[in-house]
Amino acid sequence: MNLTIRQFSSSAEGFYADLETLLAWDSVSDAGIQKSVADIVEQVRLRGDEAVIEFTNRFDRRDVTSSSELEISREELALAKKRVSPELVASLEAAAKRVHQYHERQKQPSWQYQEENGTVLGQKVTSLDRVGVYVPGGKAAYPSSVLMNVMPAKVAGVSEIIMVVPTPDGFVNDVVLAAAFIAGVDRVFTIGGAQAVAALAYGTQTVPKVDKIVGPGNIYVATAKKMVFGIVGIDMIAGPSEILVVCDGKTDPDWIAMDLFSQAEHDEDAQSILISPDLAFLDSVKESMERLVETQSRQAIIKASLEGRGAFIHVKDMDEAMDIANLVAAEHLELSMDEPEKWVEKIRHAGAIFMGRHTPEALGDYCAGPNHVLPTSGTARFSSPLGVYDFQKRSSLIYCSDVGASELAKIASPIARAESLEAHAMSAEYRMLKGD
Amino acid sequence: MNLTIRQFSSSAEGFYADLETLLAWDSVSDAGIQKSVADIVEQVRLRGDEAVIEFTNRFDRRDVTSSSELEISREELALAKKRVSPELVASLEAAAKRVHQYHERQKQPSWQYQEENGTVLGQKVTSLDRVGVYVPGGKAAYPSSVLMNVMPAKVAGVSEIIMVVPTPDGFVNDVVLAAAFIAGVDRVFTIGGAQAVAALAYGTQTVPKVDKIVGPGNIYVATAKKMVFGIVGIDMIAGPSEILVVCDGKTDPDWIAMDLFSQAEHDEDAQSILISPDLAFLDSVKESMERLVETQSRQAIIKASLEGRGAFIHVKDMDEAMDIANLVAAEHLELSMDEPEKWVEKIRHAGAIFMGRHTPEALGDYCAGPNHVLPTSGTARFSSPLGVYDFQKRSSLIYCSDVGASELAKIASPIARAESLEAHAMSAEYRMLKGD
Repeated sequence: MNLTIRQFSSSAEGFYADLETLLAWDSVSDAGIQKSVADIVEQVRLRGDEAVIEFTNRFDRRDVTSSSELEISREELALAKKRVSPELVASLEAAAKRVHQYHERQKQPSWQYQEENGTVLGQKVTSLDRVGVYVPGGKAAYPSSVLMNVMPAKVAGVSEIIMVVPTPDGFVNDVVLAAAFIAGVDRVFTIGGAQAVAALAYGTQTVPKVDKIVGPGNIYVATAKKMVFGIVGIDMIAGPSEILVVCDGKTDPDWIAMDLFSQAEHDEDAQSILISPDLAFLDSVKESMERLVETQSRQAIIKASLEGRGAFIHVKDMDEAMDIANLVAAEHLELSMDEPEKWVEKIRHAGAIFMGRHTPEALGDYCAGPNHVLPTSGTARFSSPLGVYDFQKRSSLIYCSDVGASELAKIASPIARAESLEAHAMSAEYRMLKGD
Repeated sequence: MNLTIRQFSSSAEGFYADLETLLAWDSVSDAGIQKSVADIVEQVRLRGDEAVIEFTNRFDRRDVTSSSELEISREELALAKKRVSPELVASLEAAAKRVHQYHERQKQPSWQYQEENGTVLGQKVTSLDRVGVYVPGGKAAYPSSVLMNVMPAKVAGVSEIIMVVPTPDGFVNDVVLAAAFIAGVDRVFTIGGAQAVAALAYGTQTVPKVDKIVGPGNIYVATAKKMVFGIVGIDMIAGPSEILVVCDGKTDPDWIAMDLFSQAEHDEDAQSILISPDLAFLDSVKESMERLVETQSRQAIIKASLEGRGAFIHVKDMDEAMDIANLVAAEHLELSMDEPEKWVEKIRHAGAIFMGRHTPEALGDYCAGPNHVLPTSGTARFSSPLGVYDFQKRSSLIYCSDVGASELAKIASPIARAESLEAHAMSAEYRMLKGD
């Protein structure tokens, strides 16, 4: 199948402007969506369960009459797991175990230190009490997302994890419920959309209010999350998924082709970019892609994604490839090359870095250990993969000795007075020792 | 001066509902503000400097004709510092040093580990490249805020720190500029409001685009920050400042009165709450307050704040006080009591915890070391003080050995197929070793 994929040369005039256009993604929801979501959120805030049931019946074409019908018990999760094939259960359990092990390393301890005069300073680290995890529903549901969103919260020590998953037309995905059981979700509600986000943010008679909401969703879910940000914490708002593969030209072109497909098959807006200093290699990968795309069940999506947003970039050398990788700040960066441990030193911005020819993104998506919830659309410039740190928070500790307080008061008082905050100054000065 | 401060008893019927009402704060900006801000942001995004100059002239009553007039050089900052009294400069420098020392402990290192089959997993930690710090302008400007917002970014290793500070009617605050010099700000622009936030988020011909914007501002600034969240990172949206003092009744009532004033003097919306199991002590503090408020230059603000949002809460014992403190999740929590190191164990939610009778909040506001940018309005349930971690981000590292990749592919493939993501499965399977 012929594939028309853009090809750029870094030495061409206007390359960096072209690159910017290639990467541009506007995820802003329009005024109509904003208004609908604001209305749904407000209704749920004011009317609780009643509004949640109304919206659930309307949007998910359900026939719920009592809020008790919205909950799936742990026993039902266990039954769902029994309906899943043992091979798949074993894979989910192995993945959960590896994700757990990796995330254990992210746990941050409390710390404190004492100064000479006896003053103690520190940072107390605690987990969040209750977290909501949004899981998209329907037939294209992702059990791996359940594991990736829930495990860091479990490792952090969150005491109660509430999952919401819509069941449009009443369709329940057993694999998703099995993953929820394996990950250790405490309660599951079959609600979705902006109404589920609002229920978690404000609480209803049935759905408990949480401290933070994580997990991917459509534009209504994303808009609702942004709207309730501040009332509760939220994770980042994800754009379409992207991969940037940098290859020295010595990896099997079929492997690279399939790695690019694995991103492109997500949806038409997903972005797959290949960078290489080897022009002949780019041609070989293109040949592989045109041959292999025929074998793909999702070939229409792959073709649309690659032709709409994909690109090949020919660079003069690996140093330039690394510079471009930093500009792109990709969600997934694959360094398919010799000595990736040397080149990775030059990478400053990326969500996850897949090093060497034997590390396709797909392994990280499921079971290598690190999280697959990653900053998209260049936001790796300022944000991080979802992690245990997203479910822990810190409190500063200050415990002054009398001598310490007296010394600090001498520093604080002039600044407070310069800010015209006299009570601040006096509150500090009260702790000055006589003679100080 | 008579002060009418609400007093609650935890044993009264309806106490927890009353507490919720007391704490309620709605910081949502109205539709009018949303629309003005959206317009300003869009104009700056489209027209850059031209729009920034227009809005600056209009809102700050200035007469700027060229964008070069908007920048204050490092030399001018040094000159401003010379105009500040040596005592105040010494205080600012001592405060900066202590804040730097404390924040050094927050730096997070990169880490990695190798599994038996040779696969390496890790987390690479890097600093943000460029950060914008918003500093409110005018006569009520806060040099301590400059230190607290800039120092964690410096410690994190951010290479370029851009400060924006409006200069309404051309008024420039020397102490703020001196603090910027001491903290090591790289560039300063005299712009403010939503137009400054937009300039930092999108970049203009003169103002460089940053990766994250931090710092407090009015409702226009907060609304603009929330609007550009996702394009750049932002810190939390702060509500009015609050303090919760828990006292066993054995601290000098004048000290506690002044600690409560130090919060109340910020503005009418600030909240000061005192909890004690000692009813007579609450009366003594009230007497101290009525006497001391007369001495305060900001007595009108203090009175309005205490009468509008302040409260005394009588509890049955310290255990109950700690439970209430966790419900409040205060920005500032003062444990003015014997053995605070024992009681702090029970605290799960607070921005900063001030322990013992010699640790008033004011010392933490200026120079103890920890940050004074703290989660307000109960958001300490899910967020943390501003810290070095806000200016670092993480990239996951995955480097599979051939054996490791082959083992992981066996786990990944069934899950990928269950998710109908065939290219993911094949991309993993390509890395299976023969015979595996």
